[in-house]
Amino acid sequence: MSQQPPELTGFAESVAIVGVGLIGGSIAAALRHRGFPGSIVGVGRDRARLDRAQAAGLVDRGTEDPGSGAAEADLIVFCTPVEQIVAGVRAAAAGCRPGTLITDAGSVKERICRSLANGFPNRVTFIGSHPVAGSEKRGFEHADADLFEGRVCVVTPTAQTPETALERLTAFWRFLGMKVIELPADQHDAVLARTSHLPHVVAAALAEAVPPELYELAGTGFRDTTRIAAGSPDLWVGILLDNAASLLPALEAYAERLREFREALHERDDKRLLELLGDAKRNRDALGI
Amino acid sequence: MSQQPPELTGFAESVAIVGVGLIGGSIAAALRHRGFPGSIVGVGRDRARLDRAQAAGLVDRGTEDPGSGAAEADLIVFCTPVEQIVAGVRAAAAGCRPGTLITDAGSVKERICRSLANGFPNRVTFIGSHPVAGSEKRGFEHADADLFEGRVCVVTPTAQTPETALERLTAFWRFLGMKVIELPADQHDAVLARTSHLPHVVAAALAEAVPPELYELAGTGFRDTTRIAAGSPDLWVGILLDNAASLLPALEAYAERLREFREALHERDDKRLLELLGDAKRNRDALGI
Repeated sequence: MSQQPPELTGFAESVAIVGVGLIGGSIAAALRHRGFPGSIVGVGRDRARLDRAQAAGLVDRGTEDPGSGAAEADLIVFCTPVEQIVAGVRAAAAGCRPGTLITDAGSVKERICRSLANGFPNRVTFIGSHPVAGSEKRGFEHADADLFEGRVCVVTPTAQTPETALERLTAFWRFLGMKVIELPADQHDAVLARTSHLPHVVAAALAEAVPPELYELAGTGFRDTTRIAAGSPDLWVGILLDNAASLLPALEAYAERLREFREALHERDDKRLLELLGDAKRNRDALGI
Repeated sequence: MSQQPPELTGFAESVAIVGVGLIGGSIAAALRHRGFPGSIVGVGRDRARLDRAQAAGLVDRGTEDPGSGAAEADLIVFCTPVEQIVAGVRAAAAGCRPGTLITDAGSVKERICRSLANGFPNRVTFIGSHPVAGSEKRGFEHADADLFEGRVCVVTPTAQTPETALERLTAFWRFLGMKVIELPADQHDAVLARTSHLPHVVAAALAEAVPPELYELAGTGFRDTTRIAAGSPDLWVGILLDNAASLLPALEAYAERLREFREALHERDDKRLLELLGDAKRNRDALGI
């Protein structure tokens, strides 16, 4: 991975990261690692943790004052829980410099983008983003400069989004090594309900259904199938509720697949079971990893 | 991992492995790697593949004749699909030397052990085994000498099992690096229905429910949650049907957990969702990996 020449980093001179956790910390680490020449400001609520993030070299400065963080950056990235993003963006937009670009890293986009669709004065622009990368771990201590490498970032511009702002945002995510895809926010949510939020519920229900006293006889299959169930319940309540409208039909479709398996098992129908498992394998093999 | 001195390998002078696939091949590789001084015979149905397993150094000799393979080994390990084990063991027992120990590596134990409970003449003994280790891959080309290292092997002796035979079997799996646990076959099946067979159906239903055209927006969560759905449909039809009696109530309990999630989401009940996700995380954290 070669460092990009600084002249290619015209997306921002100073980046503020609001919420320096796993995602925010990894963005900071990736910016550093790829030679971002500007300053990185971390905005958070816990002074001690901000100091440690600064000591770890992730941010140049940490501040508990969102206004101060916003005022000095020309690109602000919200990496807070989804339910805090709209209010945070509104507050930041009120105090930032003309022309500032604001984005987020939230896993659900429709409500956030709709709430912020009316725009802001002073050429301040919000465009939704969702870097599709993550971990069940929390905190900047697990920050990974390669977390975004080769991954997809969905950006959700609207008809009102200025082209230059979209270009800056695209350049930012590309600088972190991501492939950028544009999608309407509601389409993003419909797809992610199935590729991300459904798997989370499926894994959590499985972890619930199999109690720890049986884990001595659990293998790598159970380990992998439930890995994401270790994710933060607080963060995920916000995500699941935010996307409930798309997630509920996805869960219903999934329950129907499960019913087919139960029926085939109940009938001891080996042909039907073979079909179901064959369909599953064909899909999974198409993922190729 | 240090090699054991040959005098510790008194469990067998010659091991026959029936079914030289991922599990059988990994047993052969582990025996080699750990300095097993005896001979390893591979029994299979495909001459060309047996020759390749021999060329790869996994077996000393390959044979398509189960009788010949059985006759020269004093430990026979069946690594065939579960539905072929009972007939294979009976045929081998009829032609093997007095005192031969026969075991298997099948994922379901009750039916197999019950079918073979009447025993055999000539001090030939069958004891069921299930090394809880595996992969979604197939074939000895993916054989891994460390596959069993640190893993649990369940053995399922009965009241009639001779103590010396059980000691030999335990020594064999320990030689491969495994921790050996004794359980009645029906208890094994009840536990594995939840820790292994349920996760397989859960993962397969998820892979079915999310079509490949959405995979560009699938992250590591979907990848891990569905990994085992790439396993062989043929092998798994046998396993799932063999354990249908324990798996069906496990699937019912799982569907009930899913219903709780759907209800909480439908009611937009954030407290209930937090409880459900918290329970799941507590369990998953107890797995600790």
